[in-house]
Amino acid sequence: MANVFGDKWSFTSFGESHGAAIGGILDGVPAGLHIDFDMIRKELERRAGKGNKGASPRAKNEPDEVEWLSGVMDGVTLGTPIAFLIRNKDARPEDYEWLKHTYRPGHADKTYEQKYGIRDWRGGGRASARETAGRVVAGCIAKQALRLKGIAIHAALIQVGAETDPDKFAETIAAYQKDGDSIGGIIECHISGVPAGTGEPIFNKLQAELAFAVMSINACKGFEYGTGFGGVTKPGSEINHLSGGIAGGIADGTDIVFRCVFKPTPSTPKAGVKGRHDACVATRAVPVVEAMTALALINLI
Amino acid sequence: MANVFGDKWSFTSFGESHGAAIGGILDGVPAGLHIDFDMIRKELERRAGKGNKGASPRAKNEPDEVEWLSGVMDGVTLGTPIAFLIRNKDARPEDYEWLKHTYRPGHADKTYEQKYGIRDWRGGGRASARETAGRVVAGCIAKQALRLKGIAIHAALIQVGAETDPDKFAETIAAYQKDGDSIGGIIECHISGVPAGTGEPIFNKLQAELAFAVMSINACKGFEYGTGFGGVTKPGSEINHLSGGIAGGIADGTDIVFRCVFKPTPSTPKAGVKGRHDACVATRAVPVVEAMTALALINLI
Amino acid sequence: MANVFGDKWSFTSFGESHGAAIGGILDGVPAGLHIDFDMIRKELERRAGKGNKGASPRAKNEPDEVEWLSGVMDGVTLGTPIAFLIRNKDARPEDYEWLKHTYRPGHADKTYEQKYGIRDWRGGGRASARETAGRVVAGCIAKQALRLKGIAIHAALIQVGAETDPDKFAETIAAYQKDGDSIGGIIECHISGVPAGTGEPIFNKLQAELAFAVMSINACKGFEYGTGFGGVTKPGSEINHLSGGIAGGIADGTDIVFRCVFKPTPSTPKAGVKGRHDACVATRAVPVVEAMTALALINLI
Amino acid sequence: MANVFGDKWSFTSFGESHGAAIGGILDGVPAGLHIDFDMIRKELERRAGKGNKGASPRAKNEPDEVEWLSGVMDGVTLGTPIAFLIRNKDARPEDYEWLKHTYRPGHADKTYEQKYGIRDWRGGGRASARETAGRVVAGCIAKQALRLKGIAIHAALIQVGAETDPDKFAETIAAYQKDGDSIGGIIECHISGVPAGTGEPIFNKLQAELAFAVMSINACKGFEYGTGFGGVTKPGSEINHLSGGIAGGIADGTDIVFRCVFKPTPSTPKAGVKGRHDACVATRAVPVVEAMTALALINLI
Repeated sequence: MANVFGDKWSFTSFGESHGAAIGGILDGVPAGLHIDFDMIRKELERRAGKGNKGASPRAKNEPDEVEWLSGVMDGVTLGTPIAFLIRNKDARPEDYEWLKHTYRPGHADKTYEQKYGIRDWRGGGRASARETAGRVVAGCIAKQALRLKGIAIHAALIQVGAETDPDKFAETIAAYQKDGDSIGGIIECHISGVPAGTGEPIFNKLQAELAFAVMSINACKGFEYGTGFGGVTKPGSEINHLSGGIAGGIADGTDIVFRCVFKPTPSTPKAGVKGRHDACVATRAVPVVEAMTALALINLI
Repeated sequence: MANVFGDKWSFTSFGESHGAAIGGILDGVPAGLHIDFDMIRKELERRAGKGNKGASPRAKNEPDEVEWLSGVMDGVTLGTPIAFLIRNKDARPEDYEWLKHTYRPGHADKTYEQKYGIRDWRGGGRASARETAGRVVAGCIAKQALRLKGIAIHAALIQVGAETDPDKFAETIAAYQKDGDSIGGIIECHISGVPAGTGEPIFNKLQAELAFAVMSINACKGFEYGTGFGGVTKPGSEINHLSGGIAGGIADGTDIVFRCVFKPTPSTPKAGVKGRHDACVATRAVPVVEAMTALALINLI
Repeated sequence: MANVFGDKWSFTSFGESHGAAIGGILDGVPAGLHIDFDMIRKELERRAGKGNKGASPRAKNEPDEVEWLSGVMDGVTLGTPIAFLIRNKDARPEDYEWLKHTYRPGHADKTYEQKYGIRDWRGGGRASARETAGRVVAGCIAKQALRLKGIAIHAALIQVGAETDPDKFAETIAAYQKDGDSIGGIIECHISGVPAGTGEPIFNKLQAELAFAVMSINACKGFEYGTGFGGVTKPGSEINHLSGGIAGGIADGTDIVFRCVFKPTPSTPKAGVKGRHDACVATRAVPVVEAMTALALINLI
Repeated sequence: MANVFGDKWSFTSFGESHGAAIGGILDGVPAGLHIDFDMIRKELERRAGKGNKGASPRAKNEPDEVEWLSGVMDGVTLGTPIAFLIRNKDARPEDYEWLKHTYRPGHADKTYEQKYGIRDWRGGGRASARETAGRVVAGCIAKQALRLKGIAIHAALIQVGAETDPDKFAETIAAYQKDGDSIGGIIECHISGVPAGTGEPIFNKLQAELAFAVMSINACKGFEYGTGFGGVTKPGSEINHLSGGIAGGIADGTDIVFRCVFKPTPSTPKAGVKGRHDACVATRAVPVVEAMTALALINLI
């Protein structure tokens, strides 16, 4: 079940980047939840990079309009599966005709063919970051349910390249873009309100579930929480009191903080790849990190 | 199913540190595999810290003898569930009587009680690192099956505190131990022979499955692969060719390398906790990292 | 995951009878399968009761046009999730306005409300037999894959009321319809070509999986295979050689035969329920039984 | 996960009939449940056929002593996995030496070998009815939890051969036993107290889950509920009000009644098979039917 996330609120994702549509089914949502469609629209715009200088033109030009197919009546969930789709309006397969016989370095073109013996070469097909739009829709519904339980998730970019001053991120990204290059970034995510006792003690530790959710996002290369990698140089006597909100895999009721790192996109003019791309994908990954965090949490609560 | 890892080779773990026994059931192992019991014994000794200066005396004194209950006939697997147990011979619950009403900082004592309303206070109960012995047994069988497919997993400690020279690790650990303190470490794991095409492209990306497996080990605070966190300062033009063995969640046939970080144990004389403990748990985590990596891989292949 | 069938070829179903659409996602289909769309169209017509005297007018008037959203390119599967939908063109919610405050006897109106506290009252909502159209689409793809492995599934009505002569079924049904009443039926299903060794020996016995699949169809009240209920009066010495194609939960390579019984629809003029209904739902259940059998088998092979 | 039943209270079964032990792990049991060990002992005796004339001598001579390995402290559940085993004390593999090269008709000897290429020939190995002792232990714990919610399960033999008078069952069985033959039986199970709303509407219908659970018992050839197969001759106008306790897959709060049929054992003196066997396995299946019903229900509630 390689396209399903979660077993309580289970989200099944579908869609190729330049096929008819992308979307998914969110099953397990209890009846009676009022959906805030406006919040979903805004999160999709955030993912699409509206207002970001370095975002791909396609993402900005193609408003992601969600078509709701089932599970919701008069804006209220029925307890039945919520199916939705987003049409690929701006699909221009002919732009990608050259990809039919080319494997872009750093992309999944070749591994898809190794796995399936066939691939949808049109714009990355299923491997395109476009797939994350469905995650954002499902994650928004999860966030809305979590909010009713007093749980808030807030992610933000804390580093771009070597730069750690958020006021200088736009400038840094613009420099790489101008240079026909790309750059990575680190996102930090704060979670408040998780009830003590959340998480499972052995394999499904809270941190393992969060890592799994976040590492499933394209271009994510690492995950750490609490004292993380930096804590390796500190003796126990100094850092023992820093739980990072989790002990033995179970939330202790305090805030949880984790960080994750996103690599630069490999498709750049400098790498000889023309087309519509992002100079810093980490920027647009922020709402996706929040969405996956929400889906991971709602499945544990 | 919070005590189950994997859905093809599925390992169900059981046992409290000072109950009758710990162990598990490994289901999904194909018939006809010859079990190398000697290798399992050695890996359990490695986990127990035999030969390590900083390891807990209990671990060293209590040889982990595996009792095989089912699924194996004349040393060959039957295709049926393999159940095994390891008795807790050296269980001394009375040593832990004081824990009945105490929550040790940095331990899961309190979160278990928050979750269940009850806990086995004897030596950490289910949260004890002793539980990982079962993982090592199951992981060994997975490793043996992987080896037949030409897949090798090799993990090693690459950093202890600020020290990165392996020849000086024993010395570094001894210094912290003498000081009644503890220290963290970083483990690096190399995997060779994974067939191109292994892994699933969306949620069950190979890196997400590895992160989930490794982050489920007690005291692990972070996971990274390929360029990891350090890669954030490098532009795409410099690091695009570094796949880390995975593209789009799918193995590309080259070696996979990941790193994970383990925090220092919180139970130290310096922290006022008497008893039998490890100065650097990362040392003993090495075979557990290999075991969990093997279990993650065998479920994807 | 209450709307998912199967864990290898997993089918997630969605849709309310009078919402925007019904449909599903079929995940796990290997890449490279050529879809026979014509066969799917025919099976949907069979389910819709085209040519049946006693079938509901809606079913016959509303051709079920499948819109393919993903997973298929140029008629060939990509190995990615296959999403599809069927629009509810003939949705006439106003016809069902009276159901808003009424629970029809023998229907799920009340239990849905007991479960969810809310329900889509429009024509049965999610409980409508219309949901089975999605099963037929998914089942057809499974059947096509099974056919390539030499496995054939053939179901047929073998009894309507007390009548066991197929030539007289239409007549029998017409009599009940004229009387404003309804009648049940028994379907027998033959499966050939299942490889010896298929099925799992303990809980997921082949017969248990088939029973689960078939008993999940609306109105099905019983399942039996091999000697079934009738065999109770026969001593072991007489029926021991009749395996029914399965021993110990595992196929023995011979043909498998099972039977299932469908109750009469409760919504009839005689019961005071106006609207568009079937005099013998068992007739239309035949392709659904085949579809569910195919989905059960493909998940075991 | 072919040896696992249920995903909330999940029971993993292990053990060959003449290996070291049989048993299992029951995961998902909430903390704080007081285990009634006496009831478990009695149910195991009932399964063993204590007091039954036609039961196998081994079953009666070998008291099934449960050894508890984890998950229980001072008779109270900890919320962690409950592992237990029953040693095969009376294992006499030499009695079965002749089976090494023989496939008994009507048994799973051959299909196991077809599936695995290897089999434990000692007394049926994993396919032996002895495996059901583990189900009874797990089912008893489920029953105890259900009882606290006001749910009661009561199964009884209602037919042996053509005989439907319970007072004459012992006599009927004795006649077949004397004749070196065997006979089947029908068990009826009544469930009271299931809360309205239990069950899932599409694939995991309450009746489908019950059928799956019961059809997974060795020798079970059919399942029916409510009006069952017999209802086929009755028009809707007569039987519409008979819900059988379930509508649309969801419990309506009234009693649920189902029946299942067990075939005669194929191993009889008449069939040329010497050894220790039962003349009517349906007798001993009664507590197993209750156990599987309890496990199915607890996973839905």
